[in-house]
Amino acid sequence: MRRLDERLLGDITIGSAVLGSGGGGDPYIGMLLARAAIRESGPVPLVSLAELPDDARVAFVAAVGAPGVLIEKIPRAEDAVAALDMLERHLGYSFTHIAPIEAGGLNAVTPIAPAAHKGIPIVDADGMGRAFPTLDLVTPSLYGGSATPMALADEHGNRMVLETRTNLWSEVIGRAATVASGCIQFFASYPMTGVQAREWLVDAPLTRAARLGALIRTARAEHSSPVEAIIEEEDGVRLIEGKIASVERRTERGWTMGEAVVHGTGPDLGRTMRLLFQNEYLVALRDENVIASTPDIIMTLEAETGEPIPAEEIRYGFRVAAVALPGDERWRSPAGIELSGPRRFGYDFDYAPVEALV
Amino acid sequence: MRRLDERLLGDITIGSAVLGSGGGGDPYIGMLLARAAIRESGPVPLVSLAELPDDARVAFVAAVGAPGVLIEKIPRAEDAVAALDMLERHLGYSFTHIAPIEAGGLNAVTPIAPAAHKGIPIVDADGMGRAFPTLDLVTPSLYGGSATPMALADEHGNRMVLETRTNLWSEVIGRAATVASGCIQFFASYPMTGVQAREWLVDAPLTRAARLGALIRTARAEHSSPVEAIIEEEDGVRLIEGKIASVERRTERGWTMGEAVVHGTGPDLGRTMRLLFQNEYLVALRDENVIASTPDIIMTLEAETGEPIPAEEIRYGFRVAAVALPGDERWRSPAGIELSGPRRFGYDFDYAPVEALV
Repeated sequence: MRRLDERLLGDITIGSAVLGSGGGGDPYIGMLLARAAIRESGPVPLVSLAELPDDARVAFVAAVGAPGVLIEKIPRAEDAVAALDMLERHLGYSFTHIAPIEAGGLNAVTPIAPAAHKGIPIVDADGMGRAFPTLDLVTPSLYGGSATPMALADEHGNRMVLETRTNLWSEVIGRAATVASGCIQFFASYPMTGVQAREWLVDAPLTRAARLGALIRTARAEHSSPVEAIIEEEDGVRLIEGKIASVERRTERGWTMGEAVVHGTGPDLGRTMRLLFQNEYLVALRDENVIASTPDIIMTLEAETGEPIPAEEIRYGFRVAAVALPGDERWRSPAGIELSGPRRFGYDFDYAPVEALV
Repeated sequence: MRRLDERLLGDITIGSAVLGSGGGGDPYIGMLLARAAIRESGPVPLVSLAELPDDARVAFVAAVGAPGVLIEKIPRAEDAVAALDMLERHLGYSFTHIAPIEAGGLNAVTPIAPAAHKGIPIVDADGMGRAFPTLDLVTPSLYGGSATPMALADEHGNRMVLETRTNLWSEVIGRAATVASGCIQFFASYPMTGVQAREWLVDAPLTRAARLGALIRTARAEHSSPVEAIIEEEDGVRLIEGKIASVERRTERGWTMGEAVVHGTGPDLGRTMRLLFQNEYLVALRDENVIASTPDIIMTLEAETGEPIPAEEIRYGFRVAAVALPGDERWRSPAGIELSGPRRFGYDFDYAPVEALV
């Protein structure tokens, strides 16, 4: 068992932005909540899947909403606690561990504040190995794990418990309720045992995020290229280097939707890339050919500093490198592709691994 | 204690359409559900507020959704039972009685099937004395009664428990969830004791509906005017007699919205009336002057037969009499008008009792 302290939190915050695939909500906001909790209660215990007791009671705790709204309205840690309390009351037992639902963006660290408040550890495991825009899109869904009972808590003091027939219904109804109550809520969901967590979850995403964050920090200090370091360390693929030529963005049904256009520079001069996003970057088209798509991770990094720039914050004129990292192997299985591939999001083409496309 | 049998159900069905103020959902559909339950389990006990034990556990059970969708998709009695089951499970006790949330339309009789299934009585008391388009608009709201905990159940097998800060939040979130799951759900809400029910609810609306239904039935049999009989019996006011010249109707945010225009005939020749509705008729304008508005009950009846014609079913060419009945005295109080008067629905004029306007 390790302890998640402020230094580790700093690295995870940077690295989770890379795993965010352009979405997942601004990790800086999650960091603020987590740092306040660590400063108040001390470092939070962080256990690996291997250390997790078989009879552990684990739940995901996360924020749901449009990243664009998150920036304007910082979520409150007490609502994360309220969601977990509500789920415990409904189930009639207490959770022993909290896990992040996604390793990308804000939600990599949203479990920290409620874990600190409850005095329970966090598990270094998540349900995506990245960020995805819908809460049914988690590896437990591939094993028949149920999102519900699921509890939601909003900033107005409203609470909800959902029991749905499918995980997609949790997403549909939970999101509608979230939009109705102001586009941001916390939820506690996917109650599971330690045995189930070990089978269902992606292992060690916080360790991976911390490694990515440290890599960027070190490369900067050494004046080497953080982008190169990430590509080398993570079997990544460079998609394009260039300047943001235009961004179109709108909040729609509780998501931040749109596309960013990159005009190539240097070795990519003359090339154009379109990055399509629904909270997360889902598809990268280079000169109108698909060269990367969900479930692979697509990310834009500030070219010089390697600073991850999410879809929500990308602006005209930014100099970026777009890179792709392979998605978790379970997402690349036929069942994983069916759940998380491009067709799931309404795109009319088949998934192919980024390393085969570029 | 009386028993609610098929004959009484028939009269209530007609009368509840009158109290529906043009909305509340087609009572015929509620009648079908209730009749099937009575045929299977026998007549359902019907107790008055005076007979209700002080420690009774009472809840409203009702359908929520757009009347236009209700007609296409008949709701299932088992979902009403499921909503009540879910609320009982959440509260940890069983209900002893079910009451209708509204006496107008479908929901006057939706408690019958779950009451038959549970083997418990119905209370002859409701939260509106009519129908209203939102579930916070009930007399318990005037006494600080809470809509939650509230349980909802949809046809897909999805269940939800809500605990909201205000009754309006129950309406907002509950309706968003209802729209997301297909525009029709059952809910169980406003858990209250017998003492509270006696203070909070409108007394004997089913008796009133049955009397109205019998009045129409008798007048028809005697070839006298059902419209005259209703006006006389209920201190009603005749608004216009005429032909429907146009109807505009749309489903919006889970409601059936629109207006019907009546061109006067006979003594009203040359007059024009506009009836504005949001599920229910809310405002009647005669020659562009307001002559009746919520919380008073506005209803259109087929001129000859007295058949109540809800806003959902009114069509070009129908010959109708529009009548208004005074709303419950609590709705006419300052607090009642604030909650249920025309300004609540976005109209920019003050309420005045129909008998003062005509």
